[in-house]
Amino acid sequence: MPGSPDVHRLTRDDRRQRSEAAILAAARQQFADAGFERTTIRGVASAAGVDPALVMQHFGSKEALFAAATRMPDEPVWGPGTSAADVPRLAIEEVLDRFEDEEGRDTALALARNCLTHPSATTAVRDDVMCDRISTMAGVIGGDDAELRAAVLNACLMGVTIARYLLELPPLASASREDVTRLLEPALAALVTAPDAD
Amino acid sequence: MPGSPDVHRLTRDDRRQRSEAAILAAARQQFADAGFERTTIRGVASAAGVDPALVMQHFGSKEALFAAATRMPDEPVWGPGTSAADVPRLAIEEVLDRFEDEEGRDTALALARNCLTHPSATTAVRDDVMCDRISTMAGVIGGDDAELRAAVLNACLMGVTIARYLLELPPLASASREDVTRLLEPALAALVTAPDAD
Repeated sequence: MPGSPDVHRLTRDDRRQRSEAAILAAARQQFADAGFERTTIRGVASAAGVDPALVMQHFGSKEALFAAATRMPDEPVWGPGTSAADVPRLAIEEVLDRFEDEEGRDTALALARNCLTHPSATTAVRDDVMCDRISTMAGVIGGDDAELRAAVLNACLMGVTIARYLLELPPLASASREDVTRLLEPALAALVTAPDAD
Repeated sequence: MPGSPDVHRLTRDDRRQRSEAAILAAARQQFADAGFERTTIRGVASAAGVDPALVMQHFGSKEALFAAATRMPDEPVWGPGTSAADVPRLAIEEVLDRFEDEEGRDTALALARNCLTHPSATTAVRDDVMCDRISTMAGVIGGDDAELRAAVLNACLMGVTIARYLLELPPLASASREDVTRLLEPALAALVTAPDAD
């Protein structure tokens, strides 16, 4: 193919990185579509065009492969100038972006699909993804209930993404992004500013 | 035990019903705690104090056992006098009741735990539980976006129950029912009455 580098000229390190990337992409897709239990090293190897022994040599176990395939990039969306009023829109955008972006989609789906049945995914979703978001968001919201408001807000967003992208619940699954945002934003705004307890 | 009927006086039908009930209760608990894939006929039989062959004789397969164990009772909470303003409170009460009621809890947990990885649970949650609720709720809400508003509302509630009862997300998992309701009700109210599109 013109323009593509000759595979035989690649260094050993380049080849290793290429096969790792192919294995991780195949793993992400199978964990996202079929779930942890039904995903096999053999199936991932076949989709990546490599030998199953190579998958084991790179990652050691299905568990370690899952952890490597679902590592989330750190992408802070909250700048120093973010105010409580920005929280609903930014939070919706961040979550919908993640599920609708071609590159991040399989990672998000693999974590969400497995978070209720697989211990590693439960920990990753709760401790690495949601607790971090809640703590940052609570700092922006402020006030006594800030942590609980942020937790409920993120729980609602998680429910909307699960219903839309995994359960494919009608008519939420087929609604436009704009319509989802238009209805959801005032609800999340009410969570950020709901009245305090008596 | 005084007052309890002598088991040898029970008819064959009574004994059959007793062992079925014990199997279903054990199955509900194991599907709720361990998930569909890790639940075994042998484990359910052992917890119910019966022979595995009896479980197969009663239910035929793990799949059929799951369907029988997670059948939801029909409990219409929306009376003829329900108005849109009642929807947020009634919807929150109904869902929290289900997860906090000792009898219904394992059924709700078994469905929720498995709804992202097991096809029967996906169908049961989406088509039998959520679509019915959405359609009834949309009738009460009224207006153009009623179905989508009801779908987003139920997705938010599902997210809150998953985060609270399955992920055990802090501080939502440890919050009182009153605090969850106090913060969530205005958010769901905004979903019921959010402004229409331009």
